[in-house]
Amino acid sequence: MKGDKNVDIQALKDIANKLRIDSIVATNASKSGHPTSCASMAEIMSVLFFHTMRYKISAPRDPSADRFILSKGHAAPILYAAWAEAGLFPVEELKNLRKLDSDLEGHPTPRLNFVDVGTGSLGQGLAVAAGMAYVGKYFDQAPYRVYCLVGDGEAAEGSIWESLHFASHYKLDNLVVIFDVNRLGQSEPTSLQHQLDVYDARMKAFGLHSLVVDGHDVSELVKAFDEAASVSGRPTAVIAKTFKGKNFPGIEDLENWHGKALGAEGDKVIKHLQSQIKNSSISLKPRAPLAEAPRVVLADITLSAPPAYRAADLVATRLAYGTALKKIADTNMRVIALDGDTKNSTYSDKLRNAYPDRYIECFIAEQNLVGVATGAACRDRAVVFVSTFAAFFTRTFDQIRMGAISQSNINLVGSHCGVSIGEDGPSQMGLEDLALFRAVPTATVFYPSDAVSTERAVELAANTRGICYIRTSRPNTAILYPNDEVFKVGQAKIVRQSPKDRVLLIGAGITLHECLLAADKLKTEGIEARVLDPFTVKPLDEAAIQQHAGACGGRVVVVEDHYQAGGLGEAVLSALAAARDVVARHVCVREVPRSGPPAALLDKYGISAPHIHSAAHQLLKA
Amino acid sequence: MKGDKNVDIQALKDIANKLRIDSIVATNASKSGHPTSCASMAEIMSVLFFHTMRYKISAPRDPSADRFILSKGHAAPILYAAWAEAGLFPVEELKNLRKLDSDLEGHPTPRLNFVDVGTGSLGQGLAVAAGMAYVGKYFDQAPYRVYCLVGDGEAAEGSIWESLHFASHYKLDNLVVIFDVNRLGQSEPTSLQHQLDVYDARMKAFGLHSLVVDGHDVSELVKAFDEAASVSGRPTAVIAKTFKGKNFPGIEDLENWHGKALGAEGDKVIKHLQSQIKNSSISLKPRAPLAEAPRVVLADITLSAPPAYRAADLVATRLAYGTALKKIADTNMRVIALDGDTKNSTYSDKLRNAYPDRYIECFIAEQNLVGVATGAACRDRAVVFVSTFAAFFTRTFDQIRMGAISQSNINLVGSHCGVSIGEDGPSQMGLEDLALFRAVPTATVFYPSDAVSTERAVELAANTRGICYIRTSRPNTAILYPNDEVFKVGQAKIVRQSPKDRVLLIGAGITLHECLLAADKLKTEGIEARVLDPFTVKPLDEAAIQQHAGACGGRVVVVEDHYQAGGLGEAVLSALAAARDVVARHVCVREVPRSGPPAALLDKYGISAPHIHSAAHQLLKA
Repeated sequence: MKGDKNVDIQALKDIANKLRIDSIVATNASKSGHPTSCASMAEIMSVLFFHTMRYKISAPRDPSADRFILSKGHAAPILYAAWAEAGLFPVEELKNLRKLDSDLEGHPTPRLNFVDVGTGSLGQGLAVAAGMAYVGKYFDQAPYRVYCLVGDGEAAEGSIWESLHFASHYKLDNLVVIFDVNRLGQSEPTSLQHQLDVYDARMKAFGLHSLVVDGHDVSELVKAFDEAASVSGRPTAVIAKTFKGKNFPGIEDLENWHGKALGAEGDKVIKHLQSQIKNSSISLKPRAPLAEAPRVVLADITLSAPPAYRAADLVATRLAYGTALKKIADTNMRVIALDGDTKNSTYSDKLRNAYPDRYIECFIAEQNLVGVATGAACRDRAVVFVSTFAAFFTRTFDQIRMGAISQSNINLVGSHCGVSIGEDGPSQMGLEDLALFRAVPTATVFYPSDAVSTERAVELAANTRGICYIRTSRPNTAILYPNDEVFKVGQAKIVRQSPKDRVLLIGAGITLHECLLAADKLKTEGIEARVLDPFTVKPLDEAAIQQHAGACGGRVVVVEDHYQAGGLGEAVLSALAAARDVVARHVCVREVPRSGPPAALLDKYGISAPHIHSAAHQLLKA
Repeated sequence: MKGDKNVDIQALKDIANKLRIDSIVATNASKSGHPTSCASMAEIMSVLFFHTMRYKISAPRDPSADRFILSKGHAAPILYAAWAEAGLFPVEELKNLRKLDSDLEGHPTPRLNFVDVGTGSLGQGLAVAAGMAYVGKYFDQAPYRVYCLVGDGEAAEGSIWESLHFASHYKLDNLVVIFDVNRLGQSEPTSLQHQLDVYDARMKAFGLHSLVVDGHDVSELVKAFDEAASVSGRPTAVIAKTFKGKNFPGIEDLENWHGKALGAEGDKVIKHLQSQIKNSSISLKPRAPLAEAPRVVLADITLSAPPAYRAADLVATRLAYGTALKKIADTNMRVIALDGDTKNSTYSDKLRNAYPDRYIECFIAEQNLVGVATGAACRDRAVVFVSTFAAFFTRTFDQIRMGAISQSNINLVGSHCGVSIGEDGPSQMGLEDLALFRAVPTATVFYPSDAVSTERAVELAANTRGICYIRTSRPNTAILYPNDEVFKVGQAKIVRQSPKDRVLLIGAGITLHECLLAADKLKTEGIEARVLDPFTVKPLDEAAIQQHAGACGGRVVVVEDHYQAGGLGEAVLSALAAARDVVARHVCVREVPRSGPPAALLDKYGISAPHIHSAAHQLLKA
């Protein structure tokens, strides 16, 4: 057995039981948590952290270090215990688990310097790990490896299978996925229980190198991870047969112990575990990384050339996205793009055509798409732009939600928003994407209304921390701004005004153009209207909206190609909540639309210029 | 070959080519659509609709009929063509494809009487089909069969693999999934192209009976579907090797023809197809269903006993959900529950304990969970309640969005909302669920604040069309209402008022209780506050809010355990948009929270009684 003679097997066994004890102590101190879910993976953690993985206690996020992703985030206590036992912080601190003033939260988050991404919503860790492995293999070209531990319960999540396929398709031989098959879910046994052969057959069918091991046998685990390191051209799956609550007498392999501190049972169990430990003062140090990963600088990304449109051009904002994406990629080789087989509709293919090595095709698997992006972006290894239809980001809401918890810096671009896409019908229309992204605390939401502002939105997004979302439209629309116009996050533009304005019209994308048409019509009736382009829906330029609403007699019409809840309209209403003497009308899509020509749909669903005109009149009457 | 001698093979071939011609004509008339995606599945449609399936042209939704789900919804034209050629409506009408006044939309929706659910967001059809098959096998116990056609592109969606596992686990031998492996995606070849052996190995590893066939060979298809009908104890996968644009000379198997009408190429292709047809006047009639499915009545579902709480009880609304679920199940045997391995947290186990056969454990695969529910509920076969943590419905936003398009009647119950769950931390907190469900046009959103109103919410949801969402909370809270209180959708309750009220406090769930505490505190300072419980957030009782806001000097504080965007707060602001002389403060969670005790988190994230008290004072100063 390769390397085995240098391995202190007993020490690894002892550490596994120490990690079990730590997990019991921590969860008993917090009176909550998942000690039995920790116990099943104790030997896996011991072997990974004290034998296999190469990393630096002095710099847990070092780009050259092997990565570990705990996809089953509820086993956080044993992750914390491993780092404490390795020497990152005092073991005593584990007793602060889940306390308000401790970063040792119930599930791991990057508030801890040894956690790259938040986990706890199940089935998401493997996509992130695959994104890291992709960057390691193809961009960093560094020898660091990525280990992802997946629970058997969460192996039922489809996202896991998207990621397995992705990892195998892209030959991520630097990725090892460990399945902790402990047989028991939260409320009953898993559907496959201990059918290890079924897991093995599925792994092989998905193109992975697969091994079934006794997950409590330290020697087998050492051998499995060594073998994984020698496999070329495919990721490895280590399918570990384990028992929930392993080595907890009277608890091991029994139901109804999920997510419960041991309480009064704890002392007895700890005594038993201590009796298994040969050398309680054992400590092992991790091996150092094999080589330094390349230094990467992601700052000051700019368009390689300014927007270059003529005033009479008609350009879809989705097309301007592609143009800008390629331009920012010109200026930094770590700008990369991902798409889910819609690149010829979203125009992310413009980056791919220029820099094929910096485009990752993720096929029709949007959850993995966003997860891979999160992994690729984390630890500041790449500036990632992800595109698909706006509607299909609904498929990834959980990944985006977890992205906020993960302090993720990814840029998501949703095309084909609203009824203005036309004939394809409601399944393809993004009508809830603004509600989705506005509900993400770390998000910046761009909704550019012409090609010039779209290009600047892309440039700004590349340099903005957090999750950035850019909403683009399918139809060609007029150019509104000169090529040298300067845009800022949170700064609205007034695209039409006069001293006599009596109503403020607010629109974005297609509806800003409808607002301008409505203002033309009002003018023929002697009514002046001011038109505001918010540019970013989040943060919204609340000061500008309040000021201009006041200047227009407190009359505001806000129009959007989006459902009523959570979008631009409610953002504007929020901005006006504290002001007395303002009335607003919200013009938006209020029912499930149908197929038809874009202009006919704008009209049928009440967001065309005539409807805006009518709403303005109603306010003027009020 | 069983039954083959009775099959008119040439007729089935001829019909396949007629369906191709129909698809070209329709998409050329609409100048958009996906004729090449139709062409690859023409023989499959011909065999299914004119040989294999048993159904009634006179009653396409007849509960005894075999079901067909077109998961790759963009191939809608050939589905419409099949029904037209079978005689449901004139073939000539296919030329109205995608027109505003035609129900022949770009992707199928149940506006058509032969479509059970909307498709077009990929990877979702199989879960729906599995739900139908589950009902057919276990509840209806009827011989009808369910066929689901899946594109190879969408086979990359994890949701497909969730559903395959579900179908195999529950031995759905009345389900046949056909993979149309035409090799080409939208923007490039699929990752597996024509590696039929890989599909086959994956199907077998997932426990299906699997056959690889030439998808353009009518005889092979007839044989495959006959074989599927004889398989017991497992679903069948028919993996069909096909070519995109099959029989379209100069187009077949070539890239860059996805989603394009043939335009000027159409005439030449149609001539070629006509030359392949031996008998252009051929018509075949479908076989009749084997047996009638049982008659089902879903109306007038009631609690078997009224709420029975004492005034001093402290009961979590999640627990009251479980209690009510069991009570309504007492009164109608078609009330069923589904959960994703959280049944002991959501309390859906109360139904399972009483009626184990009416509970479907879907394990940790939420997309499939909601899809199966949609399938089980459609055609009014069951009243379905689906529960998991509120946070995890974000995983299913696309399924819910499609549920609205599908005119689905499902009840979704999200527990563990907000920071009030405490120590588990942000990954487990539902803080964007109201934004999600409010953005669904067909949704009714219940947010009950005590056990009595929760029980009534469950009863009302069971009898309300569309998607119903009930938000439940983890902590125990006081009883607010007498057991005989009557609740209505869209009707708010005033839980505290006096003639001298100077501010209106609006809260729901945990924050309603905080509002009452704040009102107590204000009273000690001589300030009377009115407190309103909206009961339903959608529809919101806008009249009551406007009236009581006016009665309280136009001062409104709205408080929610939810992020700022899209929830109760913005719903209230929308209700007040048209009123001058109202000011509002929105008290909500404004950053990613962390782990800690519930009360400490309410305070830290600014939604506890002291914060409400302070917001009221700020309004009184303004």
